[in-house]
Amino acid sequence: MDANFSVSLSGAGASDPRLRDLAARATARVSRQTGIPMIPRLVQAPNATLNVVVEGRDHKGPQRLGDNERYSLQAADNKIRLSADAPLGVLRGLETFLQLIAPNPPGSVGWSVPPVSIRDEPRFPWRGLSLDVSRHFIPLDSVKRTIDGMAAVKLNVFHWHLSDDQGFRIESRKYPRLQQLGSDGQFYTQAEVKDVIDYARNRGIRVVPEFDIPGHATSWLVAYPALASGKGPYEIVHSRGTVTALIDPTKESTYKFMDGFVGEMAKLFPDEYFHIGGDEVNTREWRQSRRIQSFMRKRHIPNEKALQVYFNARLLKIVTKHGKHMEGWDEILQPNLPKSIVIQSWRGQESLWEAAREGFQGILSAGYYLDLMQPASQHYAIDPLVLPVERRERLLKENKPIPPDLSAGDAKKILGGEAAMWQELATAENLDAKLWPRLAAIAERLWSPRSTTDVDSMYRRLDSTNHWLQWLGLTQVSNLELMRERIAGTVPHAALDKFAEILEPVKGYSRHPQNYSSFTPLNRLVDSIPPESNAAREFNEAVERYLSGADPNPETLTKRLSDWHDNAERILPTLRENSLLEENIPAAEAVVVLCQIGRDAIAARLQNRADAMKPDTSAKLASAVERKGDILIQIAPGVRKLVDALAPRPGAN
Amino acid sequence: MDANFSVSLSGAGASDPRLRDLAARATARVSRQTGIPMIPRLVQAPNATLNVVVEGRDHKGPQRLGDNERYSLQAADNKIRLSADAPLGVLRGLETFLQLIAPNPPGSVGWSVPPVSIRDEPRFPWRGLSLDVSRHFIPLDSVKRTIDGMAAVKLNVFHWHLSDDQGFRIESRKYPRLQQLGSDGQFYTQAEVKDVIDYARNRGIRVVPEFDIPGHATSWLVAYPALASGKGPYEIVHSRGTVTALIDPTKESTYKFMDGFVGEMAKLFPDEYFHIGGDEVNTREWRQSRRIQSFMRKRHIPNEKALQVYFNARLLKIVTKHGKHMEGWDEILQPNLPKSIVIQSWRGQESLWEAAREGFQGILSAGYYLDLMQPASQHYAIDPLVLPVERRERLLKENKPIPPDLSAGDAKKILGGEAAMWQELATAENLDAKLWPRLAAIAERLWSPRSTTDVDSMYRRLDSTNHWLQWLGLTQVSNLELMRERIAGTVPHAALDKFAEILEPVKGYSRHPQNYSSFTPLNRLVDSIPPESNAAREFNEAVERYLSGADPNPETLTKRLSDWHDNAERILPTLRENSLLEENIPAAEAVVVLCQIGRDAIAARLQNRADAMKPDTSAKLASAVERKGDILIQIAPGVRKLVDALAPRPGAN
Repeated sequence: MDANFSVSLSGAGASDPRLRDLAARATARVSRQTGIPMIPRLVQAPNATLNVVVEGRDHKGPQRLGDNERYSLQAADNKIRLSADAPLGVLRGLETFLQLIAPNPPGSVGWSVPPVSIRDEPRFPWRGLSLDVSRHFIPLDSVKRTIDGMAAVKLNVFHWHLSDDQGFRIESRKYPRLQQLGSDGQFYTQAEVKDVIDYARNRGIRVVPEFDIPGHATSWLVAYPALASGKGPYEIVHSRGTVTALIDPTKESTYKFMDGFVGEMAKLFPDEYFHIGGDEVNTREWRQSRRIQSFMRKRHIPNEKALQVYFNARLLKIVTKHGKHMEGWDEILQPNLPKSIVIQSWRGQESLWEAAREGFQGILSAGYYLDLMQPASQHYAIDPLVLPVERRERLLKENKPIPPDLSAGDAKKILGGEAAMWQELATAENLDAKLWPRLAAIAERLWSPRSTTDVDSMYRRLDSTNHWLQWLGLTQVSNLELMRERIAGTVPHAALDKFAEILEPVKGYSRHPQNYSSFTPLNRLVDSIPPESNAAREFNEAVERYLSGADPNPETLTKRLSDWHDNAERILPTLRENSLLEENIPAAEAVVVLCQIGRDAIAARLQNRADAMKPDTSAKLASAVERKGDILIQIAPGVRKLVDALAPRPGAN
Repeated sequence: MDANFSVSLSGAGASDPRLRDLAARATARVSRQTGIPMIPRLVQAPNATLNVVVEGRDHKGPQRLGDNERYSLQAADNKIRLSADAPLGVLRGLETFLQLIAPNPPGSVGWSVPPVSIRDEPRFPWRGLSLDVSRHFIPLDSVKRTIDGMAAVKLNVFHWHLSDDQGFRIESRKYPRLQQLGSDGQFYTQAEVKDVIDYARNRGIRVVPEFDIPGHATSWLVAYPALASGKGPYEIVHSRGTVTALIDPTKESTYKFMDGFVGEMAKLFPDEYFHIGGDEVNTREWRQSRRIQSFMRKRHIPNEKALQVYFNARLLKIVTKHGKHMEGWDEILQPNLPKSIVIQSWRGQESLWEAAREGFQGILSAGYYLDLMQPASQHYAIDPLVLPVERRERLLKENKPIPPDLSAGDAKKILGGEAAMWQELATAENLDAKLWPRLAAIAERLWSPRSTTDVDSMYRRLDSTNHWLQWLGLTQVSNLELMRERIAGTVPHAALDKFAEILEPVKGYSRHPQNYSSFTPLNRLVDSIPPESNAAREFNEAVERYLSGADPNPETLTKRLSDWHDNAERILPTLRENSLLEENIPAAEAVVVLCQIGRDAIAARLQNRADAMKPDTSAKLASAVERKGDILIQIAPGVRKLVDALAPRPGAN
């Protein structure tokens, strides 16, 4: 592959607008990957380097669920043929082609694609990312960057969580107070939204908006208090705490408003699906309102759950009237709904399967929450059609029945899944690091066959993926580096990086402090480290290889432990001089202790003397593996294994 | 400074459109620098954190040369008052304010501005960057990023070199073949140009377009061969070699064309100045054309230089007719021109001063060419009003008169200077690294008093500048890292970085190989290293301190040499496996040799035994300090000093 790289485009679907600048885009990407300046060259097939054939014409209008994404890719002697039934397949195949470009072997400067013959298509038709832009606003350029990354890993739905208690993030022309009063000035104009939709469409990605109601809706009520169930006054939610503000489902004016609003948004967003949220309804306002309770009695609505069903039924009419299928979280599910709706499950496979058996379509999000800081391997193991091992074990333990797998027919109702990124503890600065590269593992799970489950292989690919995603401008590495530079002060950057490379944020929801607010500084060490430490994972794997005898030489283990140990000892005094880093002194002290225990355990093993370990080892280890503030030291499992592998000391029980 | 950061804006000039989103921009920048989520809060003076007072209203219309940039900044107890006579001063002062934000001392998490009282204004009114987008096209987002950086270091002229032999980079609606045939499809639309002009204006930066004629103009002639002096056919210049294509100054149709073109561009670019290039005219086509020679005889034009004068005089009428002052390179200077023109000097202070004495205004670019890969210190030493030391010494040596300093009156004709970045060997990928942080040193030279010349202090500030420029999205660090990742293959990234940290590209024009073309891959190690090695500079400085006795302990010197030595030895085998890195084997071998010699010299010094050096030291040193391909090993000067500082060996001459 050299500066003469060229593209041909032929076939019935070649005139599709999504392929209009294919040559320019492909060339820019190849140029960026290889570092060879190029100009776009569109030539006649089959004379191009990359010959693209689009066999079929696509339907008119926006991309639809189930649109054909199949492609095949043949490469030989640096001639590439990419063919697809439809334009989407070309976009997917182009990404595969780009991933295959590699430097030549020594003696032959240049780049090439290895000989391959690939036929590829996705397992699931709905592969998405749900992005919360309410808790912290995400500016337009970051949204586009996210879409670039999604396209690179062949995701096809951008689910835009546009409103929540913390902010209403889109311009309404019909109800402008929504953004004027409900957004703190941080929202997208309709022109910007159109720009994002076009941008996504050109990359083969649907954009599904979510307006979460009747709960998670405080920002609406700030602007239009008449919509509220309670008396108010309402303010944009900035602090943490129980939010009880609810839209009032008993007023006709609510449905008039919703009709106007959904009508406006349905025109703006061309996708067939319209997400109305519906999750986590705290019914206090409904219970406390005489007016609402009286309404329920008159209508024989037995409880608040049923009131939400009533609300959803009314909403469904509106959404349908404006030409959309309704989508919502688990809670909206009830038997009377039409089978065209889609349930997004944050609860898990069981509720999803139950819905499928009743004939409803669904997508899985449980297990794919990127804000929980879990390792890629954990997300990769989650399959919409397989009950998670832990869940199965728990059911067995509790003597409960294991739900049977879905029939082939019912399984078709499971459209796929969506990763979700909730933004309570992330901003645009570290969004990329929360998404990437872990999102690529979820994307692969949803694209590749059910049988593709090798975790080591996944991690190897994730490493490359992490590199080439950065060529698209993603900042998961560079921004974290900048964040660490910001807080480094007199601590040498390299030393801070070395310290940080074995740390991870605490998992799940355990970081949220009580006094959390929208304005809590997100400039701490915990914000500047990736969710998953490669160095720690590799160390822990190396420990396993050592203990199993697969790699009997402990020298590199000892060397790593010594490096981390010495480095942590060296930076400890400088942490004390730094207001942003001093909270990490306990973590640094624990690193020193853990590394010392690890080295001692290796020495004891080499001498075959379990009794060489100091008597306070267990206590020290127990303390060192505990969270230090919001940080975990992730070499702890490996060190613990080194200790546990020693025979019990004589005299110990 | 916390999440309640707020801005007030008052004074007669507060309604200036450039300050319209001041609160939003200031807040976003403070938020980014501190990592604290913030929303813009515009409050009443003096209750804000940052109270901005714009005393005066500005003139209507585009920013002009000499517009008032003065500001004063008072900070006490985290209340800041920024006042200025005019909006430009606010923009400049805002950058100073942002640079002053720093973390609190330990025990007090947060950020603040130290108590200061600053009155500041620039020394020169014209402080620019001339950016060549013809040799390699620079996309819009990189242009804007460059403007962000320029604003941060208070530069105020973006000189856009829009056409050259290698490409015509702007849409002309009147003469669309210019971009259609002359650009390889790589050009800015007029909408994009307007966007850049607005963007720059909002950051206090003028945009001066350059259309280089009558030489450097092949791309015009590809599109409109009737403009040419020769027969053609003309093609966009992609390979290197002598370019002789010239616009024909003897045809009336040329001037008709120029009238149309300048008219169109004069409307698009609001700045008062219009740069017509005029440099490096190879007159072969004029000499070889009977028609042109006959024209010259008829008009009594004695030679080709005079023919260019004739051309410029005609152009001047056109440029003036369209309401602009003409600007051009040294070559356009001749006595008949009006005093309103501006001469940009690539030749040096002498020609600039000569012009000033004749009453012409001028700006200096000689000494500020960033593509020559010189250290910041060298650019920093260049002053438009001071003859460079080397030049002075050379004149003395040659027994030539030293030009006297300019009188205060004539010195006023020197408006400032412009850094220049020519793009033969850079693309958008490493543009930032070629510009930053060195451009900040030039910006300081043009802003700060003549007496501010402390190089050590400049380098300390450059280091911080390099950090905060990255918060603006500049990629001088991250993109070079990506480039090294691209070529690393099996070489561990950290090891490649360690090897690369003491290397620099060869200087001046010595890299240009004979077979250079627009498509030459720019993906080599030499492309992925900064123009200036901080590690090498610091090593060489440490050597000086050691030899002078200021820092008598050589331990860290030895440690550094050992690290580089061992690292180079370690990666040597992997370089052999890598088609992109194998060319750097001689450099790695030379690093090994140099570090060994350095350690030997320190050991010899400690033993006070110059004769301990191996007899082949001189020869080895001489070879190791030579360029290795396009790379210099920049610890060589320090190592040589260590060796030279040893007393001559007994028996040596």
